[in-house]
Amino acid sequence: MAVGQSHFPDMPPLEGVCLGTAMAGIKKAGRRDLVVIELPEGARVAGVFTRNAFCAAPVTVAREHLERCQAQGTAPRYLLINTGNANAGTGQTGLRDARQSCAELARLASVTEEAVLPFSTGVIGEPLPMSALLAGLPDALHNRASDDAAWKSAGEGILTTDTRPKGASVSVEIGSQQVTINGIAKGSGMIKPDMATMLGFVVTDAAIEQTLLERLLRETVDRSFNCITVDSDTSTNDACMLVATGRGASVSSEDEVAVFRNALQRVMTELAQAIIRDGEGATKFVTLQVNEAKNREEALAVAFTVAHSPLVKTALYASDANWGRILAAVGRAPVDEFDVERVVIDLDDVRLVENGGRAQGYSEEAGSAVMARDELTIRINLGRGEENATVWTSDLSHDYVSINADYRS
Amino acid sequence: MAVGQSHFPDMPPLEGVCLGTAMAGIKKAGRRDLVVIELPEGARVAGVFTRNAFCAAPVTVAREHLERCQAQGTAPRYLLINTGNANAGTGQTGLRDARQSCAELARLASVTEEAVLPFSTGVIGEPLPMSALLAGLPDALHNRASDDAAWKSAGEGILTTDTRPKGASVSVEIGSQQVTINGIAKGSGMIKPDMATMLGFVVTDAAIEQTLLERLLRETVDRSFNCITVDSDTSTNDACMLVATGRGASVSSEDEVAVFRNALQRVMTELAQAIIRDGEGATKFVTLQVNEAKNREEALAVAFTVAHSPLVKTALYASDANWGRILAAVGRAPVDEFDVERVVIDLDDVRLVENGGRAQGYSEEAGSAVMARDELTIRINLGRGEENATVWTSDLSHDYVSINADYRS
Repeated sequence: MAVGQSHFPDMPPLEGVCLGTAMAGIKKAGRRDLVVIELPEGARVAGVFTRNAFCAAPVTVAREHLERCQAQGTAPRYLLINTGNANAGTGQTGLRDARQSCAELARLASVTEEAVLPFSTGVIGEPLPMSALLAGLPDALHNRASDDAAWKSAGEGILTTDTRPKGASVSVEIGSQQVTINGIAKGSGMIKPDMATMLGFVVTDAAIEQTLLERLLRETVDRSFNCITVDSDTSTNDACMLVATGRGASVSSEDEVAVFRNALQRVMTELAQAIIRDGEGATKFVTLQVNEAKNREEALAVAFTVAHSPLVKTALYASDANWGRILAAVGRAPVDEFDVERVVIDLDDVRLVENGGRAQGYSEEAGSAVMARDELTIRINLGRGEENATVWTSDLSHDYVSINADYRS
Repeated sequence: MAVGQSHFPDMPPLEGVCLGTAMAGIKKAGRRDLVVIELPEGARVAGVFTRNAFCAAPVTVAREHLERCQAQGTAPRYLLINTGNANAGTGQTGLRDARQSCAELARLASVTEEAVLPFSTGVIGEPLPMSALLAGLPDALHNRASDDAAWKSAGEGILTTDTRPKGASVSVEIGSQQVTINGIAKGSGMIKPDMATMLGFVVTDAAIEQTLLERLLRETVDRSFNCITVDSDTSTNDACMLVATGRGASVSSEDEVAVFRNALQRVMTELAQAIIRDGEGATKFVTLQVNEAKNREEALAVAFTVAHSPLVKTALYASDANWGRILAAVGRAPVDEFDVERVVIDLDDVRLVENGGRAQGYSEEAGSAVMARDELTIRINLGRGEENATVWTSDLSHDYVSINADYRS
C-alpha cells in the first residue's frame, strides 16, 4: 500500500553525473540491487549519517573516505550503493567487506579507494554477499548514463520494502543561469531518522563552497528527513549525501544562497514526504503541525509523541476521530508546566479540542469526515510561545504488522 | 489473546473491607461496570496518579478528596470505580459529574463527600452517563461483601479491553501476626504508566503510618507498574491506591518494613505482570533486563527504547530472531558515549550479540527456538557500570491493530 499517486519526475541530466545499475543477485534474482553514481572531478560532497551507536560498516567507511578526501583536498568520485543487505552488526568482517567493495570499484574505474563512498541497506546482521556484489560491479559501471532513465533505474536499485522509486527535481534561476537539483531516496520502514535519513542522494550542478554545502545539507535535512517518522526506529544505515558538481552557476552571495536553499528544501521535503507516503502499510499521509510552542524542541517533542503513539496511529488507520487518544498523547509529551486549558487541536478545518476538552460545536460526523481522508493535518496549538514544527507520519495498519512480521521469511 | 494461564488467586477477607459491584449499563448491558470498595474507619490511604497533563476529572477529584481528608485528620471510606467511560477530556462537566457521583454515594452511605474517591476508565471524551451510574449505586452498595467472590467480582467490574480479571494476594508473618495484602488491577492497552499504573487497588490489614505508606507505595510502584509497557501510551486516568486498614499487625520497625515491602513488591509486580500478560493482542510475555548500566535512568532508557520499538515487537510476534532490530534499537537509545563493542545481548540462554556484531557460535536455529517461546527474556549487558533495570512488555500483533482500530466501533 502507499498513499497518493506514484510519480517519478523528469530528471534533467547533470553534466558529469552518470548512474549505473546492475542485478547482482544480492537482494534476489531479477531485481536491481547495485547502483554506482559517478561524480565529475572537482565536485564537492557533504554527508550526514545516522546517530545510531550501532552504525553500519559502510557508514564508518563512507565517513572515513570522505574525511580522507577532504584532508587531501580531493573529492569522492563514486557513490556505491547496494540493497538487500545492510552490512550492519557485522563487526570487523563488515568493515573489511565495505573496504574491499570500494577497492574493487576503484580498481575498475581507476580512482583511489577513498574516492569511493559505500552505502548499504537491507537486512541487518548477515554478511555482505561479496562474490555477488563484486561480480555485479562491471555491469553497473558499464551501463551508466546521465539520462532520465538512468536516474529512475538508480531510484529503483536502492529500494528495500519500498513499493516505488522516489525522486524529486527542482530547477531555479540563479544569476542568469539555470541551476538544477536532482534527488533520489529510499525508505519505508525503520524510519525515524536522527540527523540523517534513510538513504538520500541529492546532486546539483551549482558551484558551492564546502562549508556552505555542509551547512545547507544540515539545515534542509533538519526540516525534512529529520521530521518524518513511520515507526520511531532509527536505522543503523541512514545517510543523506549532497553533491555540488560545480559545473553550473556559483552559489555564494546571500541572495543566491537564499534562492538555492529554498529549492534544496523543496527537493528534500518532497523526498522525505515520498518516504512517508510509501511507509510500510501506510494508508494515510498525516501532517502534524505544532504551533505556539516555547521553542522548537518542545514543538518537535509534542509532534513526535503524537506521531509515535500506536493508539493514535491505529485510530488513523480506522478513520476513527478518537480525539481522546490525540489529547492523551499531547498530555504525556515532555513539556514543563503544561497548561492544557490553552491547548487547541484541529483536524484539518474541524476544531476538536479547546478549554481542556472537546470543542463546542464539534460533531462526530465532522471529525469522521476528516479522518476518512487519505491526507490530513492534525494541528496542535500549545498557546505557550511563537515557535512551531511540522512532522509527517503514516498510520499503523494490519499491513505494517504483516510486512514486519514476514520481512525475513 | 493473552499469555499464560488465567489464575485469580484466593483472597483472604480483610476485616472491614467490603466490595460491591453492579451492572449499571455504563459499559454495556449485562457487564459489571460499577464497583464500590468500603474501607473501615481509621484506614490509611496513599495514592499515586498519572502524570499526563490532560489528567481525567476523577483523578483531579480523587487527589482533592484525599488531600482534604488528610488535612482534616480523617480518611477515605469508599473507593468508587466505573468502567466504560474515562470521564477524561470532559472539562468542567466532567469535574461536576465526578463530584456528584461522590456526593450521591456519600449520601447513601452516610459519609462525607470527601470520604469518597472516584476512579474511571474507558473511552475518553464522552460525558459520563450519570443517570445510569447514579441508578447503579444502591445495588453496588447493597451487595457488598468481604469474601473471595466479592474480590473477584470487583476485579471483573473494573476491566475494559482486558480479557480476564487480575488479582494478587500475599500473606506474611510480621511479629507473630499474619499480615495479608490483596490487590486487583486492570489494564491492557494505553499502558506505559508514569509514576502510576492503570487502575490498581491494593489493601492490607497492616497498621502503617501515613508517610511510610506513601513511600512504600512509590517505591514498589516504581519497580512494578512503572516498569511495564504495552504501547508507550500513558493514560489520562492511571491511578494506584494502597490502603492499610490498621486492623492487623503494626509495620514500623526496620525489619517489619523490610518484610512488608518485600511482600508488597510481590503483589505489585504480580499485578503489573498480569497486565502485560493480558496486553492487547499479546502473544508473548517479554522481560527486558538491562545490566551494567552507569545508572538506573540509563538502564531504563535502553529497556524502554527496545520495548517500544515496533520493529522489535513485530519480530517477537513473528517469533523471528531478528536480532539486528534489537541491536538497532539499543543503538538509538539515549546513552552518552556508547561503546557498542562492550554490549552483550542474550535471548534467554542464547548469546546473540558481542563485540559489536553477531556472537560467535550463534545459530539461527538456537535463536528461533527461544523466540518461539511464550515467555522469554532479552538480557542486554551494557558493560558500563553496575546499575540495572527490568521492564516487561508484550509483542505487536495483528490483534493489537484490530482491537485498537475497532475499539470505539
